[in-house]
Amino acid sequence: MTTLAIDIGGTKIAAAVCDENDTIIQRWRVPTPMDADAINQNIASVYREATAAGHDIQAIGVSAAGNVGADRKTMTFAANIPAWLNYDLSEHIGELIDHAVPVIIENDANCAGWGEYVHGAGQGSKNMVALTVGTGLGGAIVINGELYRGSFGMAAELGHLPMVPDGDHCGCGLRGCAERYTSGTSLENFAKSAVRRRPQDAKRLLELCGGDINKLEGPMVSQAAQEGDVLGLYAFNKIGEWLGRTMAATAAVLDPDIFVIGGGVVAVGDILLEPARYNYARFLEGSAYRGHAKIVAATAGQDAGLIGAANLALR
Amino acid sequence: MTTLAIDIGGTKIAAAVCDENDTIIQRWRVPTPMDADAINQNIASVYREATAAGHDIQAIGVSAAGNVGADRKTMTFAANIPAWLNYDLSEHIGELIDHAVPVIIENDANCAGWGEYVHGAGQGSKNMVALTVGTGLGGAIVINGELYRGSFGMAAELGHLPMVPDGDHCGCGLRGCAERYTSGTSLENFAKSAVRRRPQDAKRLLELCGGDINKLEGPMVSQAAQEGDVLGLYAFNKIGEWLGRTMAATAAVLDPDIFVIGGGVVAVGDILLEPARYNYARFLEGSAYRGHAKIVAATAGQDAGLIGAANLALR
Amino acid sequence: MTTLAIDIGGTKIAAAVCDENDTIIQRWRVPTPMDADAINQNIASVYREATAAGHDIQAIGVSAAGNVGADRKTMTFAANIPAWLNYDLSEHIGELIDHAVPVIIENDANCAGWGEYVHGAGQGSKNMVALTVGTGLGGAIVINGELYRGSFGMAAELGHLPMVPDGDHCGCGLRGCAERYTSGTSLENFAKSAVRRRPQDAKRLLELCGGDINKLEGPMVSQAAQEGDVLGLYAFNKIGEWLGRTMAATAAVLDPDIFVIGGGVVAVGDILLEPARYNYARFLEGSAYRGHAKIVAATAGQDAGLIGAANLALR
Amino acid sequence: MTTLAIDIGGTKIAAAVCDENDTIIQRWRVPTPMDADAINQNIASVYREATAAGHDIQAIGVSAAGNVGADRKTMTFAANIPAWLNYDLSEHIGELIDHAVPVIIENDANCAGWGEYVHGAGQGSKNMVALTVGTGLGGAIVINGELYRGSFGMAAELGHLPMVPDGDHCGCGLRGCAERYTSGTSLENFAKSAVRRRPQDAKRLLELCGGDINKLEGPMVSQAAQEGDVLGLYAFNKIGEWLGRTMAATAAVLDPDIFVIGGGVVAVGDILLEPARYNYARFLEGSAYRGHAKIVAATAGQDAGLIGAANLALR
Repeated sequence: MTTLAIDIGGTKIAAAVCDENDTIIQRWRVPTPMDADAINQNIASVYREATAAGHDIQAIGVSAAGNVGADRKTMTFAANIPAWLNYDLSEHIGELIDHAVPVIIENDANCAGWGEYVHGAGQGSKNMVALTVGTGLGGAIVINGELYRGSFGMAAELGHLPMVPDGDHCGCGLRGCAERYTSGTSLENFAKSAVRRRPQDAKRLLELCGGDINKLEGPMVSQAAQEGDVLGLYAFNKIGEWLGRTMAATAAVLDPDIFVIGGGVVAVGDILLEPARYNYARFLEGSAYRGHAKIVAATAGQDAGLIGAANLALR
Repeated sequence: MTTLAIDIGGTKIAAAVCDENDTIIQRWRVPTPMDADAINQNIASVYREATAAGHDIQAIGVSAAGNVGADRKTMTFAANIPAWLNYDLSEHIGELIDHAVPVIIENDANCAGWGEYVHGAGQGSKNMVALTVGTGLGGAIVINGELYRGSFGMAAELGHLPMVPDGDHCGCGLRGCAERYTSGTSLENFAKSAVRRRPQDAKRLLELCGGDINKLEGPMVSQAAQEGDVLGLYAFNKIGEWLGRTMAATAAVLDPDIFVIGGGVVAVGDILLEPARYNYARFLEGSAYRGHAKIVAATAGQDAGLIGAANLALR
Repeated sequence: MTTLAIDIGGTKIAAAVCDENDTIIQRWRVPTPMDADAINQNIASVYREATAAGHDIQAIGVSAAGNVGADRKTMTFAANIPAWLNYDLSEHIGELIDHAVPVIIENDANCAGWGEYVHGAGQGSKNMVALTVGTGLGGAIVINGELYRGSFGMAAELGHLPMVPDGDHCGCGLRGCAERYTSGTSLENFAKSAVRRRPQDAKRLLELCGGDINKLEGPMVSQAAQEGDVLGLYAFNKIGEWLGRTMAATAAVLDPDIFVIGGGVVAVGDILLEPARYNYARFLEGSAYRGHAKIVAATAGQDAGLIGAANLALR
Repeated sequence: MTTLAIDIGGTKIAAAVCDENDTIIQRWRVPTPMDADAINQNIASVYREATAAGHDIQAIGVSAAGNVGADRKTMTFAANIPAWLNYDLSEHIGELIDHAVPVIIENDANCAGWGEYVHGAGQGSKNMVALTVGTGLGGAIVINGELYRGSFGMAAELGHLPMVPDGDHCGCGLRGCAERYTSGTSLENFAKSAVRRRPQDAKRLLELCGGDINKLEGPMVSQAAQEGDVLGLYAFNKIGEWLGRTMAATAAVLDPDIFVIGGGVVAVGDILLEPARYNYARFLEGSAYRGHAKIVAATAGQDAGLIGAANLALR
């Protein structure tokens, strides 16, 4: 008895057949087409390959970047795929496989967070908040052992917590959203600002980007920070500060016992987590008079989303 | 079979015996002493009176202003009663009544919100957020029919959602908390500012406060606004705007289907709720692509807290 | 007796011979080279052409985008021309023309503002502030009939007044600078945000940019606003609001009698100026108890910079 | 040949006869009456005493807290003296002394700043900004050897520079004014917040205020900071940070060569000035590419205002 987990990313579709323990037993990877129909076709192809390979697929769990309706079937909106506007992704895929198995759609940050809850750093927690620090900032909430999806499927949009009135313009059309201050994109922005402000300290960052500040990317900042570069560390201190502030805001609502921080940026470990912890305590209401959530790095790795999607597909 | 509900307010302790439907069948009201022991004594006295009057009390539910631990027994902190610092209020009351019945402690905003859920405007909702706009701003969260208290009893502290970095100084020691922008206190502040800025429009507000702007109080602003006074309406527009912003921030986390707005200030109805609804939609992520929570006035009245405490005591 | 005025823009170098009344009597226009030396050569060529044509040039006045030292000779920094780092532009040009006439360098916003003072909307004012709303936001200050340049040539950098702590990232490396909220660039940003937030109202703006929101440009927003388009008007209301706020901040320092608003964006007239005036009064300290500066559109036209440079060259 | 300088403070009126070098040769001090007429009478009395004592008074210079018109005669508004609403203070005093000498009115921060320019830390500067950090935050600007008063007498209102949109409520009716973040009042606010947030570190501050946080006053915070108390130093770091930000904003307009910091709070010296300098450089546009203003403590002492008023009276 297996599930087929699908992770539709910006550039590639990852797929995996998982056993009843969510262990991956076979993998596929194909480019992500620009076209919604082609995406569906690709997923159906993988399903046919998987069954042809003898896997007894019980359900398909799809992790998708975008807003998923409370029905766990419909893409209500996705910034990168215009066709996904109130688009019944479950039904479109289902048609191509003769509705042989149920197709469950879930937001990508929810899948990754759930993966951490069932097989990663969130195991055993009571109320967990997971944050995925990638290009943007994704969130997932687990309450009493259940993924919390809200009344319209829009819960845990922590990347769009309003942190700064009249703040940085966000791709969502609002200003001052959390992901403008804590994400891979904002890491680059803070680093670029630092280079402009402190040219005398910018030697290493400029080396890494070949002298063209506009080509500076997140991994270069991570590398510089890990080497001890002062501007690289500055940029992490800033996104760490805002990660702490974002968690403090979240705690005013949810008061969880644990925050699990995932995403590529967290590979630097305490370079990010220490300023995050410090500022969480600094901005948490009643800090001196209450229990504090643990703040830990994710441990389920890059497959957290696939694992989470696999597990959710059968719940 | 009855419960005894106690509401410890800043100036008075209200008590009520409630039947199995949470209907109030007898009431008491005594002044709130300054002293923690005296408060306990008063509550024990009421309990003895109630049993002497023949009521079969099964439990005592206490609504208290302050932070209540996850055990529903301990006051971890209360701004107005210094002795309530990690103070086992349940045990102290219990001792005085020979532990005859269980004593359940709950935060006052949680009690009022729960009262709205079981007998007021929140009935039948799936995920409800209640906001009590009083001197400060209190919150309560109900998820899938259960009061959500968080891992350390500190959930739903929506009055301390950080809305403005470096904003107005809050009594909690942080700055820019939501209750500095939407509460009875902030209503007064916005009105006073308006009088200073627009003296030519301030005739009515100055009349109501006897010409001394420092004596302007919330109910005067409500009266002026209801008469159509331009500065009174301005002050409500401002706290309504921030109420809307606070709900939009809450929705980024919780995505509820309903917000129930209670507290004395909401007596003005749409004068507060219309700007709140407008700004909720204005600042809600993905506003054009999602379901929207209803925003309604509380209906359980001033007894919401007692009713909620009574109901919670037996759960 | 004439002066040669030079305006080094991002794409072209405009030049003009002006008579003693700053009237333009001959013009040139050449593309702006990427290279500092080539720019100098081009300017020297124009000078030689002008003298060959019989003009009795007394001085060269150069308007340049970037920071100019207090000596009116040195480019201390320019975002677009890296070589202009503590670069004695006056001397480099002077060498090429055998130091035949003095070469005076002035910041472009200062030239345009001074043009308005001597021949435009600022004539007869006592203390004038000019704001040029272009790609960014430039400022100029005239006090008691003199251009005010500050102690290091950096006065009137009003586009970098800090308006929002932790606000929008600015090209200067700081955040929340005024030009991130009131400029042609910010006009585009506000319009794009509005399209994302209110797709149902975005028909006209999407038409104008050919359906690709990333291709939306300022003049399209101006056109839409002038047609009465609701999102176009929204974007102007926002930059107008922040223009008003920026002027109120400036008035807290300088308390001028007039603000002259120039730049391409101001062609829409009251669509920009009305929200600017409204918000100036709204955010001005002591608004009810003081004289208010006039806020008017620039009148010297696109040649304001050349006229100003010509006039300044002989002062 | 002497002048009579008058400084009308909140609790007392200080007066001094000054010689042609602005040296004080005789002093008076009387309580400040609540009533505008009584204030005038007191000033006239002092004048009569001074002339009776044989001083050849040439002019009276009056330093007053409030807004002074461009005519240097009229109080346009004063928060503490309601009668001073477009009140010709010069004329009212003049009548009582038969217009024997001219009576010049000047804002108190302007007098103190001018005192620093002519006899204190600002001597020899080209463009000076003085900031007086008292209960509020006052400013004075000297440009090319002249006190700059603006077109309506409202220049240099640096305490009301808008630093934080939607920030702390200011007595002027606006929000987020600089003096809400850097002043004696804000020093108390930051210290009180710190005590609430960090009770474990609050021993010394609580001792100094007798255990009642509401009785904490600025001088106690200064004392604690000078003893090395961590919360006292925190409070100074915060007002120092905002002093730096306020100066950086001022420099975007004026680009002065010196800031002179006066007022009672500055007695702590570098405890305030170091964070101010650090944050000035941190938030100054083009910090790496420009000259920086000096930031120094005032040196003319508590008589700066009297000295400045005396000197201004004859200019």
